Amino acid sequence: MSDALPPEFALIAKYFRPLAGPGSLDLRDDAALLTPPPERDLVLTADAMVGGVHFLPDDPPDLVGRKLLRVNLSDLAAKGATPLGYLLTVSTPKDTPESWYAAFTDGLAQDQAEFGVTLLGGDTTSTPGPISLSVTIVGHVARGMAVHRFGANDGDGIWVTGTIGDGALGLAVATGRLADPTGYLLGRYRLPQPRVGLAIGGVASAGMDVSDGLVQDLGHICRASNLAAEIDAALVPLSPQARAAGEAWLETCLTGGDDYELLLAVPPSNETALQEAATARGVAVTRIGGFHSGASQVMVTAANGETLALKKGGWSHF
Amino acid sequence: MSDALPPEFALIAKYFRPLAGPGSLDLRDDAALLTPPPERDLVLTADAMVGGVHFLPDDPPDLVGRKLLRVNLSDLAAKGATPLGYLLTVSTPKDTPESWYAAFTDGLAQDQAEFGVTLLGGDTTSTPGPISLSVTIVGHVARGMAVHRFGANDGDGIWVTGTIGDGALGLAVATGRLADPTGYLLGRYRLPQPRVGLAIGGVASAGMDVSDGLVQDLGHICRASNLAAEIDAALVPLSPQARAAGEAWLETCLTGGDDYELLLAVPPSNETALQEAATARGVAVTRIGGFHSGASQVMVTAANGETLALKKGGWSHF
Repeated sequence: MSDALPPEFALIAKYFRPLAGPGSLDLRDDAALLTPPPERDLVLTADAMVGGVHFLPDDPPDLVGRKLLRVNLSDLAAKGATPLGYLLTVSTPKDTPESWYAAFTDGLAQDQAEFGVTLLGGDTTSTPGPISLSVTIVGHVARGMAVHRFGANDGDGIWVTGTIGDGALGLAVATGRLADPTGYLLGRYRLPQPRVGLAIGGVASAGMDVSDGLVQDLGHICRASNLAAEIDAALVPLSPQARAAGEAWLETCLTGGDDYELLLAVPPSNETALQEAATARGVAVTRIGGFHSGASQVMVTAANGETLALKKGGWSHF
Repeated sequence: MSDALPPEFALIAKYFRPLAGPGSLDLRDDAALLTPPPERDLVLTADAMVGGVHFLPDDPPDLVGRKLLRVNLSDLAAKGATPLGYLLTVSTPKDTPESWYAAFTDGLAQDQAEFGVTLLGGDTTSTPGPISLSVTIVGHVARGMAVHRFGANDGDGIWVTGTIGDGALGLAVATGRLADPTGYLLGRYRLPQPRVGLAIGGVASAGMDVSDGLVQDLGHICRASNLAAEIDAALVPLSPQARAAGEAWLETCLTGGDDYELLLAVPPSNETALQEAATARGVAVTRIGGFHSGASQVMVTAANGETLALKKGGWSHF
């Protein structure tokens, strides 16, 4: 046998090795090595993305790569964690053109630089189905300071970062159901903005990122914290583009998901701290309602004071 | 909205939550928390498995789950690492029967108990394609003691655990190309035996697990260590069942992969230590050749003293 690399490893060498950072052993080994930062807890989370489910066949591969990384970064942001690195599995059809890997890894490289993470390891395989991707991301947080879904208290305010609904409307744009003259909504769907670096540890009593729909995700915090939640639809921050879509799209905004904004429970005594942290990162934060004791459910009040009847709270794969 | 769980989360609660261990936050959160063991390095590795590529449609789901875990445990074994826990992504077609999840998670539970790992977190999604799975496993090793692919020295022996080729022959059985009256070969293909716990740290100068074919994988150690390797085909340990398949299957054994045995570089001075470590775990170890200085390539010598000409060294997905 010569020392020429088999095609799979040539692909790794050309496109994935340039992404590899400390601990990756240059992707030349079976596993990555990580010396954990002292006195910090590690935070680990994994997400899969499948062609035809999480992204569309004609989504640009660089944006697919960036979104894959960003949805995972968003989970770290929701814990108040600092990103360290990630492992990646990439399963592609045999006829995937080399240009796909080039663009996909270009996108990853761009966001690695933006968010300060590097590739630790992973796996490349073929698949007879659509492109299937997964990322496991590793971050760290001061010991005992991670934000959880549980921990919200009666009287805490419900806060969100940024604007809600753009991602779900962007999907409607991508599938031809909504106009988007400026391209803003499509951009928000394809390239969410994870709120990494927002200092929520010790400020939020509970939190998570909004990925499957605001109402459904708020329900998760209610169940985990054993509380009821009430939000005022008129307070939910919408972008000008989402407002322009009209009232008929409000339910999509509240339940559509793909926001990757943070949803936080914040005691009144910490509101100033939250606003200072948000200002430091240039992120808007908005109070949209509150938690109170009661059966764990989410009520959404419309502008006319009536309770909104929603067909569903959010996205379920099954 | 009521507090009833959406179907995706009901699936997680019923089948995956029972697998969750310390740090998983009961799979109720966005991420897992891990307090790293003091003075240890973390070892992380990820593998994907795709239906129709890594397992066959009629492979029993419990064995698919166990194999998924075991191929990752095998990577930890190759570093000399102790398993801690794993993250799992599961992408399944919408019409996947509930019995599939029940059997798949049964298999995971069985091997969690056998190998001392628990589920830390993950993601479940739908897919329009075949079942796609990924695991990222986390282990730990004494600081600085991980075994790498690099580090082999001129004069080190080439050693393997167990027997080589059974997995590749088992695949031949599963696809109707070979008879297997006892079911041994098929069993070895479906349920590899990761050599977790074999104390190779400080004993092997380099190593990896054989997943893509003995010759190709040995080539990885050669490239990483900048050495040539020579193995004697007659010394490669074969099971009685592999011997019974006959000489025509030898090349399949040497290049077929799916062994999940360890391939180690061991200095002569450490041979006794290796054999003691192997005895302690009830694992056979066999010297099959040696490393020497020269261009990084693998030579396989046949029983008649001639160099075997192999069509390829091992498996490549592309």
